[in-house]
Amino acid sequence: MKARVTVTLKNGVLDPQGKAIEGALGSLGFAGVNSARQGKIIDLDLAATDPEAAKAEITQMCEKLLANTVIENYSIDIMG
Amino acid sequence: MKARVTVTLKNGVLDPQGKAIEGALGSLGFAGVNSARQGKIIDLDLAATDPEAAKAEITQMCEKLLANTVIENYSIDIMG
Repeated sequence: MKARVTVTLKNGVLDPQGKAIEGALGSLGFAGVNSARQGKIIDLDLAATDPEAAKAEITQMCEKLLANTVIENYSIDIMG
Repeated sequence: MKARVTVTLKNGVLDPQGKAIEGALGSLGFAGVNSARQGKIIDLDLAATDPEAAKAEITQMCEKLLANTVIENYSIDIMG
């Protein structure tokens, strides 16, 4: 079973990488960029076959390792 | 207009970050992880209001800056 975890910074958390992208896009002539924020995805291939069980397991993975829940949000998409 | 760019490594490209995540999940007792691959997302807030124009502009951004098209794929989701 494949799943995608999306980890994004919470609103209000400073995002230097995003700011750098904003600046670089401006330098390249892309004028219409109001803001850019960077996050990450983790594509997992799991042995689990039950979507509910897989989601529960991935939630544990996010809480323990994949996301820093103080400053980051995560979402889980089961892709079958 | 908000848009999300998803950048992932092409198949076959070595992903040390993904391998590290795989190893760390195994160490934490998550046994059922066959593979993990890491990618990134860039959330853009654009001044453009036309979805087609926005998509064309973001494609240019990806080709020029956001993705290394030699080793990475990108996809663009316009989120309205």
